[in-house]
Amino acid sequence: MSGKTVAGNFFEDFHVGQRIVHATPRTLSHGDAALYQALYGSRFAVQSSDVFAQSVGLPKSPLDDLLVFHTVFGKSVPDISLNAVANLGYAEGRFLRPVYPGETLSAHSEVIGLKENSNRQTGVVYVRTIGTNEKDEQVLSYVRWVMVRKRDPESVVPAAVVPKLATSVAAADLHVPPHLNFDTLFGTAQSGSRHLWDDYAVGEKIDHVDGITVEEAEHMMATRLYQNTARVHFNQFSEGQGRFGRRLIYGGHVISLARAISFNGLANALLIAGINGGRHVNPLFAGDTVFAWSQVLDKQPLAHRKDIGLLRLRLVATKDLPCGEFPDKDDAGAYPENVILDFDYWAVMPRA
Amino acid sequence: MSGKTVAGNFFEDFHVGQRIVHATPRTLSHGDAALYQALYGSRFAVQSSDVFAQSVGLPKSPLDDLLVFHTVFGKSVPDISLNAVANLGYAEGRFLRPVYPGETLSAHSEVIGLKENSNRQTGVVYVRTIGTNEKDEQVLSYVRWVMVRKRDPESVVPAAVVPKLATSVAAADLHVPPHLNFDTLFGTAQSGSRHLWDDYAVGEKIDHVDGITVEEAEHMMATRLYQNTARVHFNQFSEGQGRFGRRLIYGGHVISLARAISFNGLANALLIAGINGGRHVNPLFAGDTVFAWSQVLDKQPLAHRKDIGLLRLRLVATKDLPCGEFPDKDDAGAYPENVILDFDYWAVMPRA
Amino acid sequence: MSGKTVAGNFFEDFHVGQRIVHATPRTLSHGDAALYQALYGSRFAVQSSDVFAQSVGLPKSPLDDLLVFHTVFGKSVPDISLNAVANLGYAEGRFLRPVYPGETLSAHSEVIGLKENSNRQTGVVYVRTIGTNEKDEQVLSYVRWVMVRKRDPESVVPAAVVPKLATSVAAADLHVPPHLNFDTLFGTAQSGSRHLWDDYAVGEKIDHVDGITVEEAEHMMATRLYQNTARVHFNQFSEGQGRFGRRLIYGGHVISLARAISFNGLANALLIAGINGGRHVNPLFAGDTVFAWSQVLDKQPLAHRKDIGLLRLRLVATKDLPCGEFPDKDDAGAYPENVILDFDYWAVMPRA
Repeated sequence: MSGKTVAGNFFEDFHVGQRIVHATPRTLSHGDAALYQALYGSRFAVQSSDVFAQSVGLPKSPLDDLLVFHTVFGKSVPDISLNAVANLGYAEGRFLRPVYPGETLSAHSEVIGLKENSNRQTGVVYVRTIGTNEKDEQVLSYVRWVMVRKRDPESVVPAAVVPKLATSVAAADLHVPPHLNFDTLFGTAQSGSRHLWDDYAVGEKIDHVDGITVEEAEHMMATRLYQNTARVHFNQFSEGQGRFGRRLIYGGHVISLARAISFNGLANALLIAGINGGRHVNPLFAGDTVFAWSQVLDKQPLAHRKDIGLLRLRLVATKDLPCGEFPDKDDAGAYPENVILDFDYWAVMPRA
Repeated sequence: MSGKTVAGNFFEDFHVGQRIVHATPRTLSHGDAALYQALYGSRFAVQSSDVFAQSVGLPKSPLDDLLVFHTVFGKSVPDISLNAVANLGYAEGRFLRPVYPGETLSAHSEVIGLKENSNRQTGVVYVRTIGTNEKDEQVLSYVRWVMVRKRDPESVVPAAVVPKLATSVAAADLHVPPHLNFDTLFGTAQSGSRHLWDDYAVGEKIDHVDGITVEEAEHMMATRLYQNTARVHFNQFSEGQGRFGRRLIYGGHVISLARAISFNGLANALLIAGINGGRHVNPLFAGDTVFAWSQVLDKQPLAHRKDIGLLRLRLVATKDLPCGEFPDKDDAGAYPENVILDFDYWAVMPRA
Repeated sequence: MSGKTVAGNFFEDFHVGQRIVHATPRTLSHGDAALYQALYGSRFAVQSSDVFAQSVGLPKSPLDDLLVFHTVFGKSVPDISLNAVANLGYAEGRFLRPVYPGETLSAHSEVIGLKENSNRQTGVVYVRTIGTNEKDEQVLSYVRWVMVRKRDPESVVPAAVVPKLATSVAAADLHVPPHLNFDTLFGTAQSGSRHLWDDYAVGEKIDHVDGITVEEAEHMMATRLYQNTARVHFNQFSEGQGRFGRRLIYGGHVISLARAISFNGLANALLIAGINGGRHVNPLFAGDTVFAWSQVLDKQPLAHRKDIGLLRLRLVATKDLPCGEFPDKDDAGAYPENVILDFDYWAVMPRA
């Protein structure tokens, strides 16, 4: 390998407090929005129609929150997870400002924890990654932790630092766009559902019914759109000789599919405000069909606002398994092999 | 299924005169136009080049008429045809105004007919669907009829109402954009053909020669772009156990493929003005190769205009069958199994 | 075949000096840029971020040079190579002006050489193809030669004219955008590499490491985006009965994949200034995985500029063969069957 080729960082290359500026800044456009539409089929009204977005106080349709997430995440891959064995989890995710077509996103990360595994082959790297727009305003902040290979199992590394992470983002810490306004007559015929925040009960489960089969061309186009360079997604020649014998689908692709499927039952969960946690508990491969169900974990009103509520939702995705019976982990926390995602987030929803 | 999940309307849920406002409004952009280009490879000059569009009096390139059709159609699916067994036909389609990138399309339908089938398992629903832009101007109006399941075969329904539909749209009822102007030197080198309206004869048949093989990723990306949620297109897990054992391709995808293929022989059929009728006579599946041929059914000059003519065209598409011998229905009206589409439309073409 | 269907030109239809205006002009947009991104995953900073482009003196991100190349090339296909047996080579390619979203590209070609093959079945056609923008300014000029079928092997053709083509474009003849400026602090953290022009040595080889597997849906969407109508790429029904038994991937798709892969090792090769030569030495099919390596062939400073250098690069792509050992032609000039592309170009790179 030439000295000019990036081989990615190994566990030994990280230190707590390290700040990494990621390449490549990227201007997102209506073209990216259209591709996101074609890849997932999302139907949330605010992201779909400038006119609808204006009816709720926004200047125009923002880009899908998850497109922003994937774009920021993708930038961190060459520096953080090129030598990762697994993407272990997310926490403390906050969407801080809507992103509109024409804005340019950059990303940087800070290493906030490091812990070698007992086998000394790998270690866990905790990073807080921040996405900013061209005015250097933060648009997204989240923590993720990944298991990264050591360059040399024998190398001695510093004592473990494990960050204390919130199990969920406090509602008071979430950002709701200041001009967002559902006071005026909210168009439920346009949004696709008459069910608003007040209609959802904590504990309620929703089977989203629909299933979407995934193709190789789709997940690779998505992952390239995000400039995510993780090798396992693209290279059948090497993956064919690897652990699964095939290309692994980017976990974020699963989140976006499940979120799009969740429209049927959560059509008014218009924006994502926070990510409390998320785990990719089994791999997804091309040819599999993704289904999803949700559970309402919490409800919080927004201070001083009668028109907006926050809904904490658990979004569970499966492969080749319809969700009418809400397939879930067992009492010991073990997931059935057909469950692929357990994602915990805050959504913004209009009130009645 | 949760009470919040949309299960779609059954035959009993419709009544004649019913007006249904469809979710979700959608702003179409240059991104949608680029995806449409990548999915079908159309080469009609007016939709391809702003400069060419301006040379014929339009402010810029309009979106492809069929992209507008599919977008409006897609909105109607969750309300009209989620429980459809078959999409039976189209009639009285009129494109009323060009749609440009940046415009927001909404749709609503009126139920104009209902007829239970003799088996009492299903019935035919006739709707007129109207697409409007953000100024509430109509851009498209068409009738379609679908066979929809009854919720309960035993339920008693009102007496049949079958609308009287025109066998074709009268040329005088078609809309041609008022500023469209082919008086100036029309650029046949740019448009791809020197054959203009006066060169076509009623009865003439054209084999469009080229074939395009369809992939699963393509038709699903297309159908999601249109926010069409019909389950048969996306879910291999359930369709694998169904009638065909595989995903069925959205009929509109076939129309767009055939229209793009028809460029070779009809390059100056620049705009679609009306849809007289259309039937999807056999299903298309991924891996099949689509071919097409056309026949000129009628020619009409445009009143008070020497530069524009209307051509009524029959567009027949096949799968895995080149069209050199113009495969067609037999005298009894039965189609060979390789014929998939029989589509009757009006095109706008410059005169010599 | 109807007289209205284009069958393409045969060898006898060309004459030296002939000028052919190609259909269809095309306005490229942010949508095309996003699709290009999704298809190849390129990460070069100038094309990725308007902010970055402005930091180096450009008004905004230009479209990828190869998107411009494929668009111009695609227009020439119906007139030049619809009846081609093989695309033999490129030479004297010069990118003369950046193209930005919103610009409209047209193309025309001049026949500069003709040589019948000794078997009299085919002949080689040499054309210089020129792409222009809506102001009729040239944006691209290149020569290619293709082997084209004769309509009739018995027909007598004029004496051979073989143009004298430069083996490489002289650095002094290359165009560098006049406002491009790397004098200010160049953002190597943003661009993805700290290696600048002065760090590369003539003769140096770089293995780009990463591999990308190609799917049928991807290469067909790409080739339709470019309005390239060559039949071998789209029609499994006919190709299944042909030479390879399958669809052949457009050679330009390979160039774009290899160029995107070359980011890892050449991140600061920000623009392509010229194409010295290029040969598609073996076919690529869906399911194959593309790898690439580069060699620095030459380095030239830019007259009167301390901030910009030109790097002549040889880009070799393989299928199903990692490039750690730099697979290459043998001493007799014969290529291993896994080598698919040998491409020679000039890149623009900032100096230290």
